[in-house]
Formats: sequence, structure tokens, C-alpha cells
Amino acid sequence: MKHVLVIHGPNLNLLGTREKNVYGSVTLAEIDQALRDLAASLELQLTIVQSNSEGDIVTAIQQAQGKADGLLINPGAYTHTSVAIRDAIAGTGVACVEVHLSNIHAREEFRTHSHVAPVSKGQICGFGKDSYLLGLRALAGL
Amino acid sequence: MKHVLVIHGPNLNLLGTREKNVYGSVTLAEIDQALRDLAASLELQLTIVQSNSEGDIVTAIQQAQGKADGLLINPGAYTHTSVAIRDAIAGTGVACVEVHLSNIHAREEFRTHSHVAPVSKGQICGFGKDSYLLGLRALAGL
Amino acid sequence: MKHVLVIHGPNLNLLGTREKNVYGSVTLAEIDQALRDLAASLELQLTIVQSNSEGDIVTAIQQAQGKADGLLINPGAYTHTSVAIRDAIAGTGVACVEVHLSNIHAREEFRTHSHVAPVSKGQICGFGKDSYLLGLRALAGL
Amino acid sequence: MKHVLVIHGPNLNLLGTREKNVYGSVTLAEIDQALRDLAASLELQLTIVQSNSEGDIVTAIQQAQGKADGLLINPGAYTHTSVAIRDAIAGTGVACVEVHLSNIHAREEFRTHSHVAPVSKGQICGFGKDSYLLGLRALAGL
Amino acid sequence: MKHVLVIHGPNLNLLGTREKNVYGSVTLAEIDQALRDLAASLELQLTIVQSNSEGDIVTAIQQAQGKADGLLINPGAYTHTSVAIRDAIAGTGVACVEVHLSNIHAREEFRTHSHVAPVSKGQICGFGKDSYLLGLRALAGL
Amino acid sequence: MKHVLVIHGPNLNLLGTREKNVYGSVTLAEIDQALRDLAASLELQLTIVQSNSEGDIVTAIQQAQGKADGLLINPGAYTHTSVAIRDAIAGTGVACVEVHLSNIHAREEFRTHSHVAPVSKGQICGFGKDSYLLGLRALAGL
Amino acid sequence: MKHVLVIHGPNLNLLGTREKNVYGSVTLAEIDQALRDLAASLELQLTIVQSNSEGDIVTAIQQAQGKADGLLINPGAYTHTSVAIRDAIAGTGVACVEVHLSNIHAREEFRTHSHVAPVSKGQICGFGKDSYLLGLRALAGL
Amino acid sequence: MKHVLVIHGPNLNLLGTREKNVYGSVTLAEIDQALRDLAASLELQLTIVQSNSEGDIVTAIQQAQGKADGLLINPGAYTHTSVAIRDAIAGTGVACVEVHLSNIHAREEFRTHSHVAPVSKGQICGFGKDSYLLGLRALAGL
Amino acid sequence: MKHVLVIHGPNLNLLGTREKNVYGSVTLAEIDQALRDLAASLELQLTIVQSNSEGDIVTAIQQAQGKADGLLINPGAYTHTSVAIRDAIAGTGVACVEVHLSNIHAREEFRTHSHVAPVSKGQICGFGKDSYLLGLRALAGL
Amino acid sequence: MKHVLVIHGPNLNLLGTREKNVYGSVTLAEIDQALRDLAASLELQLTIVQSNSEGDIVTAIQQAQGKADGLLINPGAYTHTSVAIRDAIAGTGVACVEVHLSNIHAREEFRTHSHVAPVSKGQICGFGKDSYLLGLRALAGL
Amino acid sequence: MKHVLVIHGPNLNLLGTREKNVYGSVTLAEIDQALRDLAASLELQLTIVQSNSEGDIVTAIQQAQGKADGLLINPGAYTHTSVAIRDAIAGTGVACVEVHLSNIHAREEFRTHSHVAPVSKGQICGFGKDSYLLGLRALAGL
Amino acid sequence: MKHVLVIHGPNLNLLGTREKNVYGSVTLAEIDQALRDLAASLELQLTIVQSNSEGDIVTAIQQAQGKADGLLINPGAYTHTSVAIRDAIAGTGVACVEVHLSNIHAREEFRTHSHVAPVSKGQICGFGKDSYLLGLRALAGL
Repeated sequence: MKHVLVIHGPNLNLLGTREKNVYGSVTLAEIDQALRDLAASLELQLTIVQSNSEGDIVTAIQQAQGKADGLLINPGAYTHTSVAIRDAIAGTGVACVEVHLSNIHAREEFRTHSHVAPVSKGQICGFGKDSYLLGLRALAGL
Repeated sequence: MKHVLVIHGPNLNLLGTREKNVYGSVTLAEIDQALRDLAASLELQLTIVQSNSEGDIVTAIQQAQGKADGLLINPGAYTHTSVAIRDAIAGTGVACVEVHLSNIHAREEFRTHSHVAPVSKGQICGFGKDSYLLGLRALAGL
Repeated sequence: MKHVLVIHGPNLNLLGTREKNVYGSVTLAEIDQALRDLAASLELQLTIVQSNSEGDIVTAIQQAQGKADGLLINPGAYTHTSVAIRDAIAGTGVACVEVHLSNIHAREEFRTHSHVAPVSKGQICGFGKDSYLLGLRALAGL
Repeated sequence: MKHVLVIHGPNLNLLGTREKNVYGSVTLAEIDQALRDLAASLELQLTIVQSNSEGDIVTAIQQAQGKADGLLINPGAYTHTSVAIRDAIAGTGVACVEVHLSNIHAREEFRTHSHVAPVSKGQICGFGKDSYLLGLRALAGL
Repeated sequence: MKHVLVIHGPNLNLLGTREKNVYGSVTLAEIDQALRDLAASLELQLTIVQSNSEGDIVTAIQQAQGKADGLLINPGAYTHTSVAIRDAIAGTGVACVEVHLSNIHAREEFRTHSHVAPVSKGQICGFGKDSYLLGLRALAGL
Repeated sequence: MKHVLVIHGPNLNLLGTREKNVYGSVTLAEIDQALRDLAASLELQLTIVQSNSEGDIVTAIQQAQGKADGLLINPGAYTHTSVAIRDAIAGTGVACVEVHLSNIHAREEFRTHSHVAPVSKGQICGFGKDSYLLGLRALAGL
Repeated sequence: MKHVLVIHGPNLNLLGTREKNVYGSVTLAEIDQALRDLAASLELQLTIVQSNSEGDIVTAIQQAQGKADGLLINPGAYTHTSVAIRDAIAGTGVACVEVHLSNIHAREEFRTHSHVAPVSKGQICGFGKDSYLLGLRALAGL
Repeated sequence: MKHVLVIHGPNLNLLGTREKNVYGSVTLAEIDQALRDLAASLELQLTIVQSNSEGDIVTAIQQAQGKADGLLINPGAYTHTSVAIRDAIAGTGVACVEVHLSNIHAREEFRTHSHVAPVSKGQICGFGKDSYLLGLRALAGL
Repeated sequence: MKHVLVIHGPNLNLLGTREKNVYGSVTLAEIDQALRDLAASLELQLTIVQSNSEGDIVTAIQQAQGKADGLLINPGAYTHTSVAIRDAIAGTGVACVEVHLSNIHAREEFRTHSHVAPVSKGQICGFGKDSYLLGLRALAGL
Repeated sequence: MKHVLVIHGPNLNLLGTREKNVYGSVTLAEIDQALRDLAASLELQLTIVQSNSEGDIVTAIQQAQGKADGLLINPGAYTHTSVAIRDAIAGTGVACVEVHLSNIHAREEFRTHSHVAPVSKGQICGFGKDSYLLGLRALAGL
Repeated sequence: MKHVLVIHGPNLNLLGTREKNVYGSVTLAEIDQALRDLAASLELQLTIVQSNSEGDIVTAIQQAQGKADGLLINPGAYTHTSVAIRDAIAGTGVACVEVHLSNIHAREEFRTHSHVAPVSKGQICGFGKDSYLLGLRALAGL
Repeated sequence: MKHVLVIHGPNLNLLGTREKNVYGSVTLAEIDQALRDLAASLELQLTIVQSNSEGDIVTAIQQAQGKADGLLINPGAYTHTSVAIRDAIAGTGVACVEVHLSNIHAREEFRTHSHVAPVSKGQICGFGKDSYLLGLRALAGL
């Protein structure tokens, strides 16, 4: 059975209360449940982490080495500012899919650039909760 | 039954022969067949168009108005240069999902910007044939 | 009797249905009728063309050489991306007036630059249907 | 009877003597007379001001509040440097049309940007004296 | 006998009448004749195409695959704006030489960048009709 | 008793009528009264000037030399365009506090840069009328 | 009684020893005492946090949701690099005032841009310890 | 006898008190006297104007038309921000020499660009009072 | 005996497994041993820290104040993104040498800029493990 | 008999040993021989110079004045950095053709700009030794 | 008696033949004679050097150390590209005046930047031969 | 016994007299002696060259081919402007270490970019004379 690490970046624990006009009313718990349901049907095992700390996310990625077969990550704000997370993904060599709830290419200019995308297999954004589910399918298809 | 228009932009008819190190060996016919199979299971009706002409793509989008419930588009090279396709999508108001075979964020700098993304629901890139299939699922989920 | 070629660029055939908050509810047919009425009072003969294709617009401008005394053009999205239309105008040497329905200087940054303006006599924008009528008067006054 | 304030910015009093290759040989008095003639036929009342001072132009716009129904302005060099004039137009909310004798988009790079255009209804440039007359018609049509 | 596809981009059909100070008085027919004469002496077979349409040029390049041994292209205005033509050349893998009548490096800034050059064997510009003849020799020498 | 010069820049005399969604409904007279009340409690003497003219503001600053112990300035639009006001402050050496009604860092890009800030003690923005009162307290605390 | 969360960003615990020519000799303890004294007179309750960790600051802001009525923050170096803190403020919707000891607009270019300012009510900088006190008054006035 | 108009821009009346480390301790009266002495020996007649107002400087240049044979100008801060003064010089066609007390190329980046230099005969900067005297000699030599 | 603090930034714990084509096969333990051996011969005492957390690195630098005579730091990815680490070095005033395993000037553009270098004594990069040893010698030589 | 000066810039004497993947294995002696053979058939006289010194190349161009009818130059690295060579070509007015062995438009960004191209008749690049031979033909055709 | 070193940079030996529309018909010999005449009247001793070589100019400046009291330099094209000449001037500490025949601020963009100006006392340009004479006077006045 | 070529670029012969606040009081002779002493202990043979001429440095690097096993270079000002030296290093393929006396990353913006670094093994800067010694050790360690 394949193992996938799911990482939610900073402020994603606010989902459902935070800027609903941008992110909708779905909560992180609902996303996690939907991911677990889909994982079961795809015969994948999930570990799910949420952290506001760049360093903790780097460490989580490192510790997945040799344990996880894939990484599904919504780096949140660190998408645009963290070279350390980029290096952790490149350094561990884990297959990575980057997802975003909102369409980052239709928002502020500074949100259109991702440090993580060049070291990921691909990027999915704009479909709310479904971005995660599509991302998990994409990982399963690799 | 919902109707989806699928548009393949310029040079996608070369798939399977073109730059295999970038785009893989899948052919456009194989992608279309996989899309048709998935559409059947999702109870969607597909119309599929490939064109090398920016103007023809604009016209195809316009003609979908009132007929198609969604647009699945890989604008190819026009992703980076066509404001006309962007305006056609915005003008018809059709729900649009942008897909790419390769991870455009990991290639040349000029391929990271999309004129189409800001008027699309979302963007999926980097998963080869699966980018299309995930895009169709995303449309179905809207 | 002087002859004027009127060219409507891509997506202008959508007028009246397209993004009414930006472009208003006037239709292209209404603009054409108003142009014909004004042309009659100014004793001008009109040929009117709409096309979504950059190449067709280039060809239409070329064919006007020796036939038309002036060109009234709303290049739509090609305003910002087409060097070919610019070169066709410069190459035929026809007197050209560029018009826009909306005030392109009050919209997205990428809409404020025109490839066509430097080879036109002048530019008129922001007055909806009246932009065309003022443009025709401007041509008549040259 | 509607009232229109006409403002000529800095150096426009030099017209007829100044850089004739760029601005032609028409004088400001001739432009004003042509404007008054057209205003009479359009049943508009005009107040005409010329000033070399940014501050005086700001004040003139402010004082038009409640008195003028429209503003026809050629901001001259202040087009490119004055945020204060922009704010005066936005602050009074007067309907504004920006005009230029020359085609500013075909001259030096620094003349292609206008601080005033984003708060105007539209911009007309390149037709010499006729830019003003077309601008007055545009105001009348609003 | 080797086969070379020659493509003339937009507005090159205007040669001899268009902006003679930039492009000289040679006509496209004269260039084609000179190319055919040189091809005969180099024992090359030529197919010559002129088009104003980006999409048609893309298609022409694709159709040369397996038929032409080399591509001699003057992409005209599309040099600076077309990623689609670039991708067609890269995708078909045909040996390509880019030529220009004028010295594009001595004209407007926007004409100094070529999307086509990075996927061509080389670029020759500035020698009028001779640019084509030198380009054909270059192809023959490859 | 210390003396403070208060300068209101261009268009601030429109307060209460101008763009209320940005600046609120407070009038300049109300701000001046609030400043005078606070000055009384802080035992400061105030001179208050409003001008639309860059030159007059420069002169007012110069004349404060030797008379005023501090300068409280809202340079309005000149914040972003006036090197002359900057030089007047630097040249007279008067202690200066820059204030703005709105949060200039949350508005258009061109409003985020201040020529005046580098020669001021500090900058306060975003608190409407209170920006002035906080600024006066800041001056008093220097 | 209203509750305000005060956050001191990285390196502010060095105050009094760190770069005195820039930040003065006041210590963080002295600032906190002055804030507590002013809070008492304004009938505000304070919670004060200092952290060198971006993630911990994000978490602290999140935990203030529903407990604090306002946020007084000196993000220190994170002002210029943290989108995560920006998103935490926007996500919780807490009323925020950004303060800085030094005048960041008079220092290195990279210190003049703030990620936090666009989601704050306003910014106060340049008055040393008084920046905090003025910021607390500003919060009280909201 | 030739006539030269000398214009001192904003804040130059502060000379001798203003930023002595940059501008030295010479006063404007001393510069004017030195200019008058040199003018006498060169048999030139001088008119000397100082103004803080951009508009007044524009008007002064206009009024010199037909009266002055040359213009010696230190535009001060307007060097970097005024297109209106540039246009006045170009419009009147008066022979102009631009001078600066300090070496503007060795100061802040924004002081290295001059709107006035491209329409002047030349620029002299960095020699304090002598910049004016050399400038007057340069005008006499034209 | 002098005391040196050695800090390894994020992902350096992956050395020996991570991107060997860039970083080689040396492990962090081997580097630390080599550092300790050299320190012994130079009569220096070492404390060695590795952390993935920006905040923890800031704190480690602060705590070295008064204890360490020098800082040898490889900030890893934080080199390019952390102003907080820069400020910690500047704030504590500790003598700092920045080292990198790879030649950062020969890699991606974004890796050529260092926030840390301007507050360090110098930078050494490109010599793998030897970068650290040379850096320790450099510190010893200060 | 016409005379052509051929200049090889810095490092071209390394040809055949230097970066063969970029420049191929042809030696400078072989290029010179091929040039001499072609010159004989075109009835041209050649002088050939190689220098690593910018100043010597400038002097060589100057000394060609009145002696050479054309200049065939591969400026090597000075293509991108030397305004002096540009000025020498413009100053002597000699007809110049610029050639490069490699396709400079397909290499590093900094190699795509040429100071020499704007003062040359044209540029030929990408054809190895043939670039020189085509260039000599181009000169002969002028 | 004071000693001044005069350096003419690359291509200045072409004066009188080179681009007369830009540089006029004066020869370098005439400039040198005029300089010698003026030097005699100012009681200065001159050494005059012309070189096309950046390295030779650097060496000439170095050798002036301890011998020359001032440096009058027209760096020609090296103005815009040579950091080495800049460093030689800064390194020897000789008082330097930079002169140009043409008004470099009214020519191509790349000629408006000078590496030499920030380490010179001042810059004089635009007055042809008189630029040198004014420069010598400026040196004498220092 | 290995052989190392040491190259000192322009103005380094001024050491000990030049800008002592930046470069210190060490002389080039002292650096050379220290290098020779260290070379002896490392059993390396040194050839040392100083030149102000870019071309001579290029030639010196070329002549080292086959003779020197390593290159220790301080390119001085040519670091920032010379593509020719870069190409010479890349072309000869000699192992190169770049050193600087001062910390170039803490000086003017234009000094932070090196053309030489991307073709060197590594860069060492900021340690005065020790930069050379560390560089020689680095070469020995390769």
C-alpha cells in the first residue's frame, strides 16, 4: 500500500472562518475527511500535517524520506517566500504535487510565483476542496 | 446531460512525435479517447477541437456560448501570447479550466505566465495526459 | 466620394452580450448602423469588416491599399499583441484612426499599451459607440 | 444649458510658435474660437482657462464643482507628472475628457503614460485642433 | 535532391511598395526568383509559401515534417510575438534558418528579440534580398 | 510655547465631499479644530496652511525657518511627485512629521512611495483625522 | 474592557544593546511598561508577546481571534518577507496597527516595502518608543 | 549687447544656510554678484529670477522669448520632476545651459536623471558657484 | 581560547543523500569532524548547531552574544530570504563569515543574492567541505 | 580589387580547443584559409587580425579607414561589452558585417545583446565557420 | 606651477572626420592647442595623452599620482563601461573633471550613465571644444 | 610539483596607497610574499602577474593552458565588466578561484555581480590579504 504525506501550510487551519469570499466555507476537517475517503478508494495510506512554521514543514518533508511515496502540499503563504521548502522537496526527491484552494494566478501579482512549483511534478489550483482531491488522484497516477 | 467543449491549441496535433522528452509519447488521439471514456463515466457530452489558429480558437469559444456548459482548454503556445482567447473566455462567461501537459512553472521563464489563467476557474499542469482527465473532473465538480 | 474601411477586431461580435459592465449593451449592428448614418452625412463610403483572426485583419488592411482613403480600426485584443497589424498599417501607408469602446488607460496595465497607436494618426477611447463616431469624424477631418 | 470648463495646461499659450513640426501652426485663440463655435451649435456654455501652474489648474477644477457639467482638459506636460490634477478630477467627480494635439503614443516613452486618463471618461489624441472639437462632442454625448 | 521549405511571414507580400526606406524596392517575386536560381545551382528543391496568418504558418511547418530537409523562414512580425511558430519548429525538429531583410538589431527595441532564433540554427539579417540567399547557402552547408 | 506649522497639501480642502469611500466625511475645518484643541492641551501654538500649489508649500516651509519648531504635513498628491518639498524640509532642517488620512500602503502602487518620508522623523497613515492628532503628539514627543 | 494583543517580532528582544545608532537605547521592558501605563489610562487590557519565529507569530495572531479586539504589531524583519503573517491578519480579520521604531522609509530600499501594511488599518514609524504608544492610541480610536 | 536670463529654481534662496555639507556656504546674492561681474566683462546683460514655483518658471522662460539670447538655469528639484519646464525650453527654442552646484551624478539615484538636459546645449555640475560662471562662459561661447 | 559558533541552516542535515550532483557525498557529520580537527589545531572552541527553523537560528545567534567570538554560518536557503537572520547578526555585532558548499554564483539567479553577506566579514563558496574549513581559518585570521 | 579587414576578437585564437560543444573543432587557421579561398574566388583582398585587446581592435578599425572597403568582425566577448568598438565602426563609417560562430540568441541572456549590431549592415550567427564565409559574401554583395 | 593631466579616450583621435553631425569638425590637435593656450594664461602645465586602450588609460592615471594636481578626462566610450578607470581615479585620489564634446544626456539611453562621474568633481558636456576649456577652468578653480 | 598562476587585475598595484578605508594598508608586494610563503609550505610553484589591461589578462590566461594547474585571480574592476576574461577561463578550462580583498556584496550594487564567478570553482571575498591565502588553499584542496 502506497503512503502519501499531506501538508497544509500556514493559516489553513483557519479554513471555514477565514476570508470566505476567497476560500469558501469548507473546513480543514472536511477536506481531510474527503481526502481520507478518496485515499481509501485509491488504496493509499495518508499522513496529514498542518503547520504554521516553515521550519517544521521542512522537517516534516525530510522525515517523509523513505516512508512516503508522494507528497501532496498546499504550502499556503510559503509558496511565495520559502526556498527552504523548495530545497527540502528537491533534497528528499519525493514526488510532489502542489495544490491551492484559490486560483493563485487570478489574485495579487505576488501570489502568482511559486518557489515550490519548479520542483513539483505539477500544480493544481482554483478548485477549492477539489484541488486536493484532484492532486491526490494526480499523485496516484504517477 | 452536460456538454463540455475541449480545445487543443497549436502544435498539440504533433503529440507523440514532438519533443518527447518534454511531452512524452502519448498521442492526441489517445488523450481524446481517454477523455471520451471518462466523459462517459461522468455522463458528460464532449466536443473536441484542435486548431493552430488563434482566431479559430476564439471563434470556437464564441460558438460554444449557449451550447457548452464548460470549457477544457490547453491553449498551448497561445497561453502566453493571446489576449484574444482570454477575452473570448471572459466575454462568453463559460466556465473554463486550463490544462497543460508539462509543468509550465518548471520551464522557460516566458512559459510561466498565462493570459488565460486569470479568467479560468483554475489551472492544472504537469501530469501529461492526466492533466486533461483531472481537468475534466474539475469541470464536472463545478 | 472618399472611402473608409472599418475593422472590428476579435470578440467585438459579442457586443451587447459580452461583459456589459465594461462594454455596455450596444450591439455591433447598432454601431455599424450609426457609422453608416454618420458616413452618409459626411459623404463617406464605408466597408465594414469584423474578424477574430489576426491574419485576416492584416490581409484586409493590405487589400484596402489603393481602394480606401482611411482606416477606422478597433483592434480589440490585438491592440496589445499584434506587431503584424502594426506593420500592415505602416506598410500600406493608409491614414488610420484607432478607437476603443472602453477607456483602455483605466483598465489592466497590459491594456494600456498599443502596438497600433504609434502608426496611427491618433487614438480615441472610452466613449462606447461614440468612440467610433468621433473616430469617423476625425478621419473625415484629416 | 450645460456648462463645460476647458483647461489648457502649461505651454499651450505658445501654440503657433512652439515646435510647429510637432504641434502645427494653429494658435490657441483659433482653437478657442473653434470650440466656442462648436459649443454654440451644441448649445453648451464654455469657460476657458490656460495656466502654466499645476496648483492653479487644481484650484480651477475644484471651483468648477457645482458649476460645470463637464471638463475638457489638455493637461500638457502635467499629464505625465501630476497626481494632484488627477486627484482634483477624482475628488470633484466632474465628467472629464482628456485631449492632446499630438499623438502622445507615438512620441517619447515618458509621454505615453497619463496620470489623468484613469480618472477621465476617455482620451482623444493626435488630431491637432480637432482633438479638442471631438472632445467637446464626446462630452456632449455623455 | 534535398528539399527546402521557404516561408515568408506577414506583410512580406507588400515588398516593393511597403516602407521602401526600410525594406528597399525589391519585390517578393524577385526574391523568390533569386532563391530558385540559387537553389538550382545548389541542387536544392524549393517550396515557397507566404502567409499573413500565424496559424497557417504553424500548419505549413508541421506539414513539412518528413518532406522538407530544411526551413528558411522570415517570420516577419511574428518573429517577436509568436511562441506557436517557435514550438512548431522545435516540435518538428526541422533544421531552420531565420532571415530578415532589415537589420532588426538596429531598429525599435521590440524588434531585437526573436522567439524563433533560439530554436533555429542561426540568424541572418540586414542584407535585404541577400539575407535570403545567404540563408539558403547556410542551410545547404548544414 | 513651542510653535508648529501644519500644512495641508492639494485637494485636502475638498475633504468631506471628496471620495468619501476613501477619505471619510470629516471636513478640513473639523480636523483643524481638533488639532487646535489638542494643541491647547499640549501647550503648542499652531499655524495652519492649505495650498494646492507646490511652490507655495515650498515657500511656506522656508518661511517657517526660525519661527516653527516643528512641521506637521500631509503633502497629499505631492507626497509622490515633489522633490522640491523634500528639499525644502531638508534645507530648513525643521523637524517634520508626515501624515495621511488613508493607508497609502493599501492603495495604488504609485501612492506607496513618498519623497517626503526620508527627510521626515516618521510617517503616520491610515487613521483618518486621528493621523493628524497622532502626528501632533509625535511632534510634541520629539 | 477591550483587549489588545501586542506582538514584537524578531530581534526586538535585543533592544537597548542592538544597533543603538538606529534603534536608540530604550529596552523592550521599558516599552512594555510604557504600553501598560498607557493601556491603563485608556482602559485597555494588554497581552504582550515577543518571538523570533514567523510560525509562532502566525499562531499567536490566530489564537487572538475572538479574544483580542485589536492587534498592535512590530513585525521587525518579517515586515518585509512574511506573507504568512499578512495572511494571518487578513484571515482573522482583527483590527491591526503596524508600528516601527525607526523610519523604515529612510533606510535601505528593501525595508520600505511592508507585506503587513496593506492588511493593517495604518502604519506608524520613526518615533522610537512613541511609535508603540501612538499605535495604541490609534487602536483605541478605531 | 546680448541678454541672458538666469533662473534659480526652488530652495536656492536658502543657499548659505541649507545643507552646507552639500551646497557649501556661498549665498545666492554672492552667486548673483559673481555672475554680474563676469557678465560685465563678457559684455552680457543679465536678468536674474528665483522662484519656488514650477508654473512661474515656465512663464518666465516663455516671457524671455524674443528678449533673451540665452538661458542659464539651475532647475533645482524641478530638474528631476518637471516636463513642463522642459517643454517651455523646447517650445521657446532659447539656447539653454543647465547648471548645478553639486555633482548630481554622485548623489541619490533619483537626482541623476534630468528632464531638462535633453533640451539643453549642455550640463555643468559639481563646481559650486563656479558651475554658474562656467555656464555663463559656455553660453557666451555658443 | 576563542569560541566560534557554527550554524548549519535548513536541509544541511540531508547532506550526503541530497542532490549529490550539486552538494557531493560528504555528510554533515564528516564536515563537523573536520571542523573540530581544524579548530583543535587553531586552538578554537566550537559549538555546532543545525536547524531548519529561521526563528531558532535567530535565537541561536542572539544567545551567542557575549559567549562566541565569531560566527561561521551556512544559512542555506535562508541566505536568500531571511532579513531576520541578517538583523540578528547586525544586532549582536558578532564577527561573521558566510560559507556555502556550492558556488551560488553559478546556479539559479535567485541564489546569487545574499541577505547575510552585507553584514558578514566575507563570503566563501564553491569548495564543498573546504568552504567551511577555509571559513574557520578566515575567522581565526580576523 | 576591393580590400576587406577581418577581425577576430578575444579568445578566438583558442578555437579548436575551447569549449568544443559550443564552438566545434574547427581552428582559426582553418577559418582563415577558407576565408582566403573564398576571397580569391570573389576577387577580394584580405587582411586578417586577431586580438584579445579591446584597444587594439579599436585601433585596427581606425587604421582601416581609407584602406579597407569593408570590415568582417567577430567581436567575441566584446560584442556585449564594448561601446568603444561600436564607436570606432560608426566613427570610421566602414561597411561592417558582424558574425558569430554560435547562435548567440540561443545562449545566455547576456549574449543576446550586441553593441556592434546597430552600427553594422547586418549580423550572421550560428553557422560555425560558415558564418564567416556567409559574412564575406554579404560584404561582397553590398 | 600646477600640473594637469589631460586624457582623451578611445576614438577621439578620429575627431574632425568622425560623425561630424555629432562631434563637429574640430580636430584633436586644435583642441590640444586651445588647451595649451588656455593653460598658459592660467599658469598651468599640461601633459596630454590619447589612447584607445582601457588598460593604458588606467596606467596613465596611476602614473600621474604625485605628479599631476588634476585630471581632465574625456573617457569616450569607456565612460559607460569602465569600472577600472573609475577605480583608478578613486584609487589615486586625483582631482578629476569629466568632459564630453556632445550632450550625452540627449543621446542614446546607454550614454547617459557614467561610471566616472561619481568619482569626479563634476561633469561638463555638450559644448564641443569649449567643454574642455571650461573643464580646465573648473580644475583651476578647485 | 603543481603550478599556479596568480593574476592581479587593474589598480591592484596601487594597494597600500589606494582607498585604505576599503582595502587596508597591505601592499601587493606583501601579498605576493605571503602567497609565496604559503605556496612553499603547500609545495606549489607560483607565477604572479599584475596588469591593468583586459586583453593582457586574457592572453595570460590563455598562455597558462598546459602550463598551470590552477588559476588564482582577483579580476578587480574587470570582475563586473569583462565577458572576455570569463570566456578565457571557460575556454582554457583551467581550475579557477576568484578572490577579492573587500566584501563585494557589501559595497555598491554594481560590484555584487561577477562575470567570472559562474566559471570559477568558487569565490572568496572580504578577508583582505587572507582572501588570497584562503584561495590558494582552496586551489590546493581541489
